[in-house]
Amino acid sequence: MTERPPLPVPPELVEAFRRYERALVDADLDTLDALTAGGASALAAGADGLLVGREHVVEARRATTRPQARRLVQTHVQVTDAEHALVVAVAEHARGGRTQQTQLWALVDDRWQVTAAHTTPPAPALDTRVWRVVGDPLVHGNASGPLLGESVAVKDVYAVAGHAISAGNPAWEAASPVERSDARVVESLIEAGADLRGIARTDEFAWSILGMNAHHGTPPNPRAPGRVPGGSSSGPASAVALGQASIGLGTDTAGSCRAPAAFCGLFGVRTSHGSVSTRGMLPLAPSFDTVGWLTRDAATLQRVGDVLLPPDSTSGSADLVVVPELLGLATPDVRSAVESWVGEQGLVVREGWPLGTREQWLAAFVTWQSWQAWQSHGAWLADRLDTIGWPVRERFEFAAGLTQARADDARAVVDDAAGIVLEALGDRVAVLPTTAAVAPLAGPRAEAARGPTLQLTAVASIAGAPVVSLPLRTRAGLPCGVSLMAAPGRDRALLDLATALS
Amino acid sequence: MTERPPLPVPPELVEAFRRYERALVDADLDTLDALTAGGASALAAGADGLLVGREHVVEARRATTRPQARRLVQTHVQVTDAEHALVVAVAEHARGGRTQQTQLWALVDDRWQVTAAHTTPPAPALDTRVWRVVGDPLVHGNASGPLLGESVAVKDVYAVAGHAISAGNPAWEAASPVERSDARVVESLIEAGADLRGIARTDEFAWSILGMNAHHGTPPNPRAPGRVPGGSSSGPASAVALGQASIGLGTDTAGSCRAPAAFCGLFGVRTSHGSVSTRGMLPLAPSFDTVGWLTRDAATLQRVGDVLLPPDSTSGSADLVVVPELLGLATPDVRSAVESWVGEQGLVVREGWPLGTREQWLAAFVTWQSWQAWQSHGAWLADRLDTIGWPVRERFEFAAGLTQARADDARAVVDDAAGIVLEALGDRVAVLPTTAAVAPLAGPRAEAARGPTLQLTAVASIAGAPVVSLPLRTRAGLPCGVSLMAAPGRDRALLDLATALS
Repeated sequence: MTERPPLPVPPELVEAFRRYERALVDADLDTLDALTAGGASALAAGADGLLVGREHVVEARRATTRPQARRLVQTHVQVTDAEHALVVAVAEHARGGRTQQTQLWALVDDRWQVTAAHTTPPAPALDTRVWRVVGDPLVHGNASGPLLGESVAVKDVYAVAGHAISAGNPAWEAASPVERSDARVVESLIEAGADLRGIARTDEFAWSILGMNAHHGTPPNPRAPGRVPGGSSSGPASAVALGQASIGLGTDTAGSCRAPAAFCGLFGVRTSHGSVSTRGMLPLAPSFDTVGWLTRDAATLQRVGDVLLPPDSTSGSADLVVVPELLGLATPDVRSAVESWVGEQGLVVREGWPLGTREQWLAAFVTWQSWQAWQSHGAWLADRLDTIGWPVRERFEFAAGLTQARADDARAVVDDAAGIVLEALGDRVAVLPTTAAVAPLAGPRAEAARGPTLQLTAVASIAGAPVVSLPLRTRAGLPCGVSLMAAPGRDRALLDLATALS
Repeated sequence: MTERPPLPVPPELVEAFRRYERALVDADLDTLDALTAGGASALAAGADGLLVGREHVVEARRATTRPQARRLVQTHVQVTDAEHALVVAVAEHARGGRTQQTQLWALVDDRWQVTAAHTTPPAPALDTRVWRVVGDPLVHGNASGPLLGESVAVKDVYAVAGHAISAGNPAWEAASPVERSDARVVESLIEAGADLRGIARTDEFAWSILGMNAHHGTPPNPRAPGRVPGGSSSGPASAVALGQASIGLGTDTAGSCRAPAAFCGLFGVRTSHGSVSTRGMLPLAPSFDTVGWLTRDAATLQRVGDVLLPPDSTSGSADLVVVPELLGLATPDVRSAVESWVGEQGLVVREGWPLGTREQWLAAFVTWQSWQAWQSHGAWLADRLDTIGWPVRERFEFAAGLTQARADDARAVVDDAAGIVLEALGDRVAVLPTTAAVAPLAGPRAEAARGPTLQLTAVASIAGAPVVSLPLRTRAGLPCGVSLMAAPGRDRALLDLATALS
């Protein structure tokens, strides 16, 4: 076309738009659905990503639409032909802020319907699913140091001076004192020049690997919208994936840095047990608890290691070994991504390990971990279990019922298993899928993803071994991870290897 | 139309879209401009509002476009006819996060061009123009009290335990100790049940009424996009207007709560000098400094007053009086809004006041204020004036050059002026425009708006009188305000009146 006068706006379109706006104000789902075009090509872009297909648009609407007092302050229409028009509108909310909306309308079967909508709602002061506190920065790093320019999302289980620890649980937060000094690793990062961006969310008491907090919601996973970010270092992972921090400081007891690294498409490390100070970190199960961190690139992962890690206490080779039984624990898409990565590495040994009692190991690991968790928090939690959301509460209830004798038996199994793994591993580097599957869709059914992944992540936890997880993608484009595990004390060698391989 | 198969996507459109995306990545402004349709109907919706007309779109692009490493991860096209198509795309940023974009393309003169764009860039952890620190909450209020459920944006001149005061100046922030206790009014709000949402931005040392901070930028004004929010309580005002807090705790020396109330469409109060404790508040000019606050409704404004204010120390009437000379200081649109409001109030007396020396008053006010500001901060600032942005630096430079004799002369004029105002006002309520004009567009030229408004706001500052500003709109729909001023000690009566009139 050449420039020509705008086409007239059909009155029926105006009427349909007004009905749509009223339905948004009233949260009138039926009217909104009736005004949404059918088919697989319907689009809705909102704060948490793009929904494709009428089915998903309608489903998400049911989950998120709430009545809202607002009034239109601007409306613009671009009519493109007799059957299509773009409507761009701005609404002012009684509670403050504005919504921007862009809608493509089409006349379908004599009815005007929305075929694509893009909505920008008023921004919150902070995304409370991701953060408890953020600042510009929250704490200034030193004026010089190797981490100058980096910003850290600190998992809400580390002491930050001036703030209480929440551990993802409001009752714990309310009862916690304001910390007078920083946790040792927080102090080290600040000394190295990194700013603290803020204190980021965690699963309650760091006891999950999924990242769904019953009180604060599920932090978004921008690489896999609608799916969990992984946990329990969920806030740090989400913050790094969103570009709101460059370093996520987490913990890893049974996979709490590794699972979110894999689910969010990040690099993550679990350090050797005992290699990095846990002073000022709330314990879960001290014989498995480790410091870990997440980044968007291998170089930053390594630079943090240069600051926090002692020199390696043992040396070894970079020979890679794959244990088919562990690889086989992953779903075909993840297995295939790991196999492809392995295929690019040249010589990789494949060998069976004597893991015949793996289910027994996992049960023993869970029992010994749970016993320790109750030793850590049972005295305080005994009368307050109802303050914890499902399913973490169930874990503490299980822990509360354990006897010393069961715990001792479990510990013996774990110790034996550690010996078997460390002997089989030797001075090499084991390659295994970080998680058994890609991030599950957020929701109660996601919980089923925990068991299969724990079978993989518990191996290093039992052995006290360091692991670096590198990001991969499945054929469908979803994030997953490959884990490199070495003997305890080889953390720096692993970070070197991760950088070399990335 | 009836449901029919999608139209084919023109290859030329695909090519144009790819060029546009590459130009966004490279910040190639010329290409972006060439691919933007002309005319008054071009639309661009972004994080800070909707731009209408090619001229504004192109201008804003020049101010904000930066190169960005990103890659498209989803692209959807809805072709509506041979000459129009909607493109919806998602890009993943190397620095984390995703951009959502929706574009309407039209074939104009054989070239595909964007006629409307809606972009949602990755959200920052916090809007650093508005906030220095935010939390969920930053500090919990008491479990009960009249302000339960409210959230406070605290201007960054009040002590909040655990944080330094920044006063909008990074050098001051770096040199300031972490506060060990809350300012008195902060403490009172917490005791009354209000949560602290966070610490919000201020003009440097609270010495402006516009809200443009040289270090942290200009907080957005959602009711008047592109215009300043007013200051110096800029962050609290913006936060309340954006719906990110319900109470903005500010200060008012020469209009610092009143100007942002008018510019952002909020209710605001300046209290009687000396009526509310300034303990823990960084001083600017103690003989004029007062506590003030901003809200979205009169009822909340009053409830905060019920907590912070002593009982009124004097009584009087609710008789309204308009001083034509003061009304005449406003631009026609603001004057007209105030006149309309006055017209709705029934009986209003109009009378001349002996304000013949008003320019002299203002000069004396500024001199006496400046002298005090240098007494407050000169010792520290003398070697550090270069850390302050223009134009606040110029004010301190002027202050540094004052002599005690000039200050004493100025004080005498101010004292006389106070007596004249208070005698003319008596026990009535004066009605005046809060600011001389609507919020100016953000930018260096906005500074010119300060003088005319100070002539209005200084009247109450000189008299130590309380003022409540109520939000009005000009005919063009822009926010402005009407101020109600009473004798010192009648703060609660003013808040009653504001509630009754709203």
